[in-house]
Amino acid sequence: MAEDIRRYPGEFAYSLAGTLVCTVFFEPSTRTRLSFEAAAHRLGARVLSVGDIQTTRVGLGESVTDTLRMAGYYADLVVARHAEDGMMERMAAAVDVPLINAGEGQGSHPTQTLIDLFTMRKHFGGLDGLRVGIAGGVRYSRAAKSLFAGLRAFRDVRLHVVDAVGDADADAAAAPMPALSQLAGADVQEHACVADMLGQVDVLYVVRVQREQYREPSTYEQQLRRCRVTRDLLRGGRRDMAVLHCLPRGEELPEEVDETPFNHYFRQAANGVAVRMAVLQRYLGRSRLSTAALMGQSLCVDIAPTQPAKPSLAW
Amino acid sequence: MAEDIRRYPGEFAYSLAGTLVCTVFFEPSTRTRLSFEAAAHRLGARVLSVGDIQTTRVGLGESVTDTLRMAGYYADLVVARHAEDGMMERMAAAVDVPLINAGEGQGSHPTQTLIDLFTMRKHFGGLDGLRVGIAGGVRYSRAAKSLFAGLRAFRDVRLHVVDAVGDADADAAAAPMPALSQLAGADVQEHACVADMLGQVDVLYVVRVQREQYREPSTYEQQLRRCRVTRDLLRGGRRDMAVLHCLPRGEELPEEVDETPFNHYFRQAANGVAVRMAVLQRYLGRSRLSTAALMGQSLCVDIAPTQPAKPSLAW
Amino acid sequence: MAEDIRRYPGEFAYSLAGTLVCTVFFEPSTRTRLSFEAAAHRLGARVLSVGDIQTTRVGLGESVTDTLRMAGYYADLVVARHAEDGMMERMAAAVDVPLINAGEGQGSHPTQTLIDLFTMRKHFGGLDGLRVGIAGGVRYSRAAKSLFAGLRAFRDVRLHVVDAVGDADADAAAAPMPALSQLAGADVQEHACVADMLGQVDVLYVVRVQREQYREPSTYEQQLRRCRVTRDLLRGGRRDMAVLHCLPRGEELPEEVDETPFNHYFRQAANGVAVRMAVLQRYLGRSRLSTAALMGQSLCVDIAPTQPAKPSLAW
Repeated sequence: MAEDIRRYPGEFAYSLAGTLVCTVFFEPSTRTRLSFEAAAHRLGARVLSVGDIQTTRVGLGESVTDTLRMAGYYADLVVARHAEDGMMERMAAAVDVPLINAGEGQGSHPTQTLIDLFTMRKHFGGLDGLRVGIAGGVRYSRAAKSLFAGLRAFRDVRLHVVDAVGDADADAAAAPMPALSQLAGADVQEHACVADMLGQVDVLYVVRVQREQYREPSTYEQQLRRCRVTRDLLRGGRRDMAVLHCLPRGEELPEEVDETPFNHYFRQAANGVAVRMAVLQRYLGRSRLSTAALMGQSLCVDIAPTQPAKPSLAW
Repeated sequence: MAEDIRRYPGEFAYSLAGTLVCTVFFEPSTRTRLSFEAAAHRLGARVLSVGDIQTTRVGLGESVTDTLRMAGYYADLVVARHAEDGMMERMAAAVDVPLINAGEGQGSHPTQTLIDLFTMRKHFGGLDGLRVGIAGGVRYSRAAKSLFAGLRAFRDVRLHVVDAVGDADADAAAAPMPALSQLAGADVQEHACVADMLGQVDVLYVVRVQREQYREPSTYEQQLRRCRVTRDLLRGGRRDMAVLHCLPRGEELPEEVDETPFNHYFRQAANGVAVRMAVLQRYLGRSRLSTAALMGQSLCVDIAPTQPAKPSLAW
Repeated sequence: MAEDIRRYPGEFAYSLAGTLVCTVFFEPSTRTRLSFEAAAHRLGARVLSVGDIQTTRVGLGESVTDTLRMAGYYADLVVARHAEDGMMERMAAAVDVPLINAGEGQGSHPTQTLIDLFTMRKHFGGLDGLRVGIAGGVRYSRAAKSLFAGLRAFRDVRLHVVDAVGDADADAAAAPMPALSQLAGADVQEHACVADMLGQVDVLYVVRVQREQYREPSTYEQQLRRCRVTRDLLRGGRRDMAVLHCLPRGEELPEEVDETPFNHYFRQAANGVAVRMAVLQRYLGRSRLSTAALMGQSLCVDIAPTQPAKPSLAW
């Protein structure tokens, strides 16, 4: 459906006219929030935004579920983000309208994954058999872990990873960190640096190396060097290799890469609106085309609990 | 009109198309602001939001009236809240468009009161002769004091109160606090705790017990115990008693009450949009049905100064 | 076009329906942002607002250009403000959609200048030969310096200034401050106080005297006294003299002036929406009437880089 939307935007310009979408972000994320809001506007829906959640009553002790309940009374669909694992399900129980997961806890970000998969599929025609390299603070990245989950829906996907481990995990002899294969739910081949895996991947998915994970600048620099994707380095990659990054970026992806043909991350960012339009259209529109064909039913359930869409007044 | 709006929302979906509503909150209140904004969207109006007022020039010393004047130039109707008594009138003098009071000073919150009365009337058919119990930090609650004012418009309403007094007022021998009857403008029967008045009320309006009013946790707990409404306690109430709370709630109304038939506070929250739609429709719409029939002219004047509606461009 | 919009607002009410405008303010300015957003709504466009930029990822190190790029993917036109000189050009390079300058650096605020000139022209019929007095913290005012640039497009404009110099500039023997004629790019006649120039000007443009520019209250008071425009003082002015102020105001323009016939600053504020509607209409609308006739091509280029308008989906 995202493809249809890209091609014939005029067909969808008023498809959700008369509906109201509410974004509720308990963790700030301008990029994701705005792309959902842009998607809603592009479909003719109206938007309510519970912007900075600190200015709301939650700061005064209101429960997350009471806030969600309010959003559910006011709007026909709620888009929510929360930093804690398991909150999406608790929030879903509080609303009678569809709830879209815009990022939850450690590793759940299904619409970002839909965007990533859509961008890969557009470039390579399909996803089965794809060789995907992921480099950066992988175990700290919600998008990367969500991508692992999404890729499990396809066949013969091979995973290569450069894993920039933070100080806390590197030190923790007592509580050893989970293996990447465990995080990915699939076999993962680890590499010392991006250069090592470059010849073996179709997609190079770069993830932020988070400075705040390191006490010493030198340790950060060392990990950064393993993951940093430069123009020179990319000469060693496949001609049609696609570099992705869910942005915002840090030093791991310098601006010199922007003008290379490997840059698919701007396209990926731009695809965000069309993909999220498809998600909103699916849960609020009259004709409910299923994204299940693309994603496997399981992830769809992650995106939104199976609530009946209610394009009418919610109270 | 709110009843009509609930029944035939489609009839009102574009009734304010082409108009622009501006919310100006000098005191944060996500719940009230969003319900007004949802109401505007549901009528087809557009919304401008002067969100967190600290980020505006008022922080740099701009006068409240200059800010209101600006809002009045940009929009066809302004919805405002301010913590100081008397500000609504000063703000009204600065704008040529209708100004809606979304909460002012110590005790003025007329649209909340309209919602409360609407919710009661839907359940009991009418308001004359109703026995209303109010429990919690009554003298600190803008909604409770505004409800007192609203109830004065009806006949033979009997008031019962459990008044959780804060430390400052309890101590102030020199400046004794006003009696509840004085606050309510009517006779009030005071009770030691909710259990004491439960058999005598049709409505139990629960108000937040504000932790910040107490120096010692033990004093807070003591007052809370007087007002706390539990599932067990409610077994002693009238079968069709309605528990209301204008939310957000604290410990005085635990979630265990949510699934009882006494829970009318979620309905009350949901009614907020329809009632505020009626208010906006009254002041911006072409056919101006009067809410005076329900509320008494005096409260209407509180809601909005008698300005002619201007559904055209404001400049 | 602004004049047409004021006269026949109904003709423009849906002229940008289906388009999406994004405001990106890297420096807070409720007044300017809201007037652009009101303008967009009045033309039937939708609005995305990257409100307080601190809550966005820019705080986490995202580059300004990456943020702009995102806005350009989501919306059909971007309205931006930034405190640094030269940023508008860098931002324009990052977006494929029209970018409107809503204030940049030390002295660029072209839409404010359009509003000022529009307000003067409405009152005096034209701008050639006008005698304009500017009083206050002129060299610290973006609006005043932008007005100098705008006035250069007209013939025989004479400039009179009362320049409230701040402590830092007054002290800086080593790095002497630029002369006003240099700032204005034209001859400027300086005066000791407003009273001195009052008989010689058609327009009195009052600019905030910024308290934060002075270490001692007494120095601030002294400068304020030179610039302060009182009711009594205005008796000495031309009968049809227009007092302008781009607001918010400080003590330099007390409220007692509001009710005098000299008050054109409220009109000026109200004109903001119509003028900005004309700017948006010019860059997003189908029929592109040129503001060049009024402003001279050079300022138009300042307002928005010469990008083709893209009223379709931006990705």
